[in-house]
Amino acid sequence: MTTFDSVAIIGLGLIGGSLARDLAALGVRVMAYDPDATRVAAAIRTNVVAGALPESLEGIGDVDVIVLATPVDEAIDILRRVAPRATRAKLITDVGSTKARIVETAHAVGIGDRFVGAHPMAGDHRSGWEASRMGLFVDAPVYLCTNRDVSAEALRLAHAFWRRLGSHPEEMAADQHDLKLAWTSHLPHMVSASLALALARAGVDRGYLGPGGRDVTRLAGSSPEMWTAIALDNAAALEAAMQETEKEIASLRAAIKRADREELNERLGAARRWMEREGGNGANGAGHGNQGQS
Amino acid sequence: MTTFDSVAIIGLGLIGGSLARDLAALGVRVMAYDPDATRVAAAIRTNVVAGALPESLEGIGDVDVIVLATPVDEAIDILRRVAPRATRAKLITDVGSTKARIVETAHAVGIGDRFVGAHPMAGDHRSGWEASRMGLFVDAPVYLCTNRDVSAEALRLAHAFWRRLGSHPEEMAADQHDLKLAWTSHLPHMVSASLALALARAGVDRGYLGPGGRDVTRLAGSSPEMWTAIALDNAAALEAAMQETEKEIASLRAAIKRADREELNERLGAARRWMEREGGNGANGAGHGNQGQS
Repeated sequence: MTTFDSVAIIGLGLIGGSLARDLAALGVRVMAYDPDATRVAAAIRTNVVAGALPESLEGIGDVDVIVLATPVDEAIDILRRVAPRATRAKLITDVGSTKARIVETAHAVGIGDRFVGAHPMAGDHRSGWEASRMGLFVDAPVYLCTNRDVSAEALRLAHAFWRRLGSHPEEMAADQHDLKLAWTSHLPHMVSASLALALARAGVDRGYLGPGGRDVTRLAGSSPEMWTAIALDNAAALEAAMQETEKEIASLRAAIKRADREELNERLGAARRWMEREGGNGANGAGHGNQGQS
Repeated sequence: MTTFDSVAIIGLGLIGGSLARDLAALGVRVMAYDPDATRVAAAIRTNVVAGALPESLEGIGDVDVIVLATPVDEAIDILRRVAPRATRAKLITDVGSTKARIVETAHAVGIGDRFVGAHPMAGDHRSGWEASRMGLFVDAPVYLCTNRDVSAEALRLAHAFWRRLGSHPEEMAADQHDLKLAWTSHLPHMVSASLALALARAGVDRGYLGPGGRDVTRLAGSSPEMWTAIALDNAAALEAAMQETEKEIASLRAAIKRADREELNERLGAARRWMEREGGNGANGAGHGNQGQS
């Protein structure tokens, strides 16, 4: 059974809203809840969403697939409320940038067999229903993370769900996912935000930066609420990655301070070699990427 | 006298090569020297350069304008050699990302009246003759920095030179320029390189990053030689800016470590407000920008 006719989406932000648009276009009946009722109203008015779910989530027992598309901390709270009500759902999933804790929670609340956590590597630094759009997941890698007690049916359905949106699902252990994302996504976000904060404190407006400096600071425009939740959910791995980056800056700075031309040239050369090596699975590979919900 | 018929360019990299292409197209006679003779040969073959200058720079006394387009440390050495030979030049200029030391040097070697240092805010992370192209300076801000003893004629000619290339010259004190650029250009470069180095050390290939992480690390692909010279020439201001950024990362990290949701949300919110404020002279203003030779 890899088909589904109805999907409930909790949270109509960039990711939830874009999912709703694509699913509606595919003929799927989409029900939705968002604490901001104007988002749901807009989605119903444009025929993206068929009906609103109440805050109690009553009625969520009637759909085939449930998607939690909220910041990761809220998703964990909502999952606890969804579990006893999700009587008919064949698949319960989410779209958060961290996976270990929500996968554990699914097991703890008794839906480990039907929960397949997902992390689509799609999005940009904008957020909200207004930024949502069709086709956001086309060619995006999507990491799938599960408990050991996941059913083969739920896993097959998760693959089918994301493939239907044009993306490339790939299974990965939740811990491995979170460690990988700490470096490839969460760290660049925190570095970008830190640079923005240093510039703000120095009174340097962004308008004075050129295209290079703008690139480095772009991620600082991401949603604070979403990234606070991600950082706290992946704290240990992210802290370690941030500390290593501080060391690299301090080390470059020390070389500048002692006018060590050779060392500086060696380090900047190593940075460029890393850039040129590319590696990973390449820019278009299914394993690449991580923009997460950035 | 704001006209010129002949220009000597020392260094046919991205900036020097692009200048040569534009000037040749404007009918200016371009002479050039580059330690890599194949660059000069390629430029002559394509009718961009009219003739090669020898390493001794003999013949440089015959041109109206002399442009030093090498890394900033080399430019200072070359300026000392150029000064006694630049008998006819009405303008001697450079294109480096730091200005205080070269402007001082020009005064010290007795050409302060004819030297107008320039910093065109154009370029990208690529470098070399191969990356050079026509139109690179169109609409780019160009900072002009001089000694007090600069002649009105040299300054007028410097304005005319850059306006003829389509760019927007703006005078600025050399010290002020270097302090500004430490924050808006040199700091983002060092942060981007440091992140690349941390990722390299952790064994994370760039192919695993999404568009966001790729943006943050892009500047790490810049020329190590050029950026070593810039960093050492602007060491004090750059060190201070790097240290402030380390503090911001450490401070975010501490908030994550103690799971201080409110503090983290406040800081990421401040970073986003900085992004949204823009300010400066805006993306298209003459005072914006700094990509320098990045």
